[in-house]
Amino acid sequence: MELRTIRIDGTTRAARVEGDQLVLLDASDVGALLRSGADRNADGATVEIATADHAPLVTHPDKIVCVGVNYADHIAEMGRDVPPAPTYFAKFRQALIGARDDIMLPVPTVSTSIDWEGELAIVIGAEARHASASEAQACIAGFTVLNDVSVRDYQRRTTQFLAGKTFEGMTPLGPGLVTVEELGDGSGLEITTEVDGVVKQSSNTSQLVFGAIDIVQDLSTIITLEPGDVIATGTPGGVGAARTPPEWMSNGTLLRTTIAGIGECTNTCRLPG
Amino acid sequence: MELRTIRIDGTTRAARVEGDQLVLLDASDVGALLRSGADRNADGATVEIATADHAPLVTHPDKIVCVGVNYADHIAEMGRDVPPAPTYFAKFRQALIGARDDIMLPVPTVSTSIDWEGELAIVIGAEARHASASEAQACIAGFTVLNDVSVRDYQRRTTQFLAGKTFEGMTPLGPGLVTVEELGDGSGLEITTEVDGVVKQSSNTSQLVFGAIDIVQDLSTIITLEPGDVIATGTPGGVGAARTPPEWMSNGTLLRTTIAGIGECTNTCRLPG
Repeated sequence: MELRTIRIDGTTRAARVEGDQLVLLDASDVGALLRSGADRNADGATVEIATADHAPLVTHPDKIVCVGVNYADHIAEMGRDVPPAPTYFAKFRQALIGARDDIMLPVPTVSTSIDWEGELAIVIGAEARHASASEAQACIAGFTVLNDVSVRDYQRRTTQFLAGKTFEGMTPLGPGLVTVEELGDGSGLEITTEVDGVVKQSSNTSQLVFGAIDIVQDLSTIITLEPGDVIATGTPGGVGAARTPPEWMSNGTLLRTTIAGIGECTNTCRLPG
Repeated sequence: MELRTIRIDGTTRAARVEGDQLVLLDASDVGALLRSGADRNADGATVEIATADHAPLVTHPDKIVCVGVNYADHIAEMGRDVPPAPTYFAKFRQALIGARDDIMLPVPTVSTSIDWEGELAIVIGAEARHASASEAQACIAGFTVLNDVSVRDYQRRTTQFLAGKTFEGMTPLGPGLVTVEELGDGSGLEITTEVDGVVKQSSNTSQLVFGAIDIVQDLSTIITLEPGDVIATGTPGGVGAARTPPEWMSNGTLLRTTIAGIGECTNTCRLPG
């Protein structure tokens, strides 16, 4: 099953994919659907996918946790060591945009070092605390696509990544949540990032150092995971910062982030005004 | 003016301090009060402060941002350099507890390196984005007390602090929001942390490298600040990790965090069960 969140009639709604149609469900977004347990198989009005306006898949996640340095090839290109445990940082909800929305660039006087990071994201479907491996698998609703678009100079101005990772309106999330019935633990999925039509990242989620179940289990030792929480699992090699010379996105750059079996985000970078 | 959030009748309520009484207001907590703009001067039923059960001052902040390495003496004891910009990391709401609540220790097999970090916290009262210095001052509702109780081995297991900073039920916040009419920019306030009655941290918020207005202005370059957002400004020298030998809190340890002109959090560390 695939679930999406669209903008319609001045608000947002959760919907289920049926062929080329979206069936509207009784929840304001997929996060609210997961929290309320509303019937995801219900009948409802339909909207053509081709004309739908996608909101961030989860509009108000309780938490957005990102995992850094979690693909062996990206660890090598950034000159880091394989960490003994998942490297966590956060992102705030104002960073999120829909799967077809423009990426809101900061003005050039703030930063021009805008980089891509295609990622598999976990969406939590049930509360989890001190989870076993089987409980960790059971609390995952499914997976989606996220691009952890990064403002590298802000990421690197101190030891902590947060500043460069939570810029407003720069993180595509969606278009759909594909459920665990189809994707299992999220391993074995081809992941690709294209920038202006050129493949820059191409890997497979089987290359994750810490997989989805490892991450959920470890996080639940620290804090209660809630339905609608989003966990980005990290990016493979091929980011702009690691290229010689470094490559950055700018006004008009087209970013396409694809995970086989889930879908793609297609976003254009835009300067304000 | 001082505002608090208490637990009452199976829910939470915002309240205004009047002498030794709390006047209940029309909002579920101080965060909701700031978001709704409900009348903070309204009349209402009263509760004695002495018998009140304090909830986290803001129960569901949209964001909790923490600033690290922001007092010169703490920077020296941790062997870090003075950063060129504020060092930000996040905390999630499940970390928060009330000003008199027990601190929920992780079981010893998870961690025993539990440290104190007394901090001045900013509470945002109005939306702010790309704020000037005067706009940054204007969007601050006031200040409160926070202890960024830290699980040091989780903080240090990777480069990113988040894991050690957002353990469930370990971060006292409150008891009251004292408004900017009384505290201005939050500078010049004595801040003290006592552990089992012994003063471990004693400094003044004038020693902050980046003050409240600097932090709010810089953060608003990155993301929109919202009413009820909480920003912890960093801790002075004297933490347990920097002592020889290191000192940790354990079951029964009494932690008292005081800021002159605001109030104090008094919390006992407790193992589960």
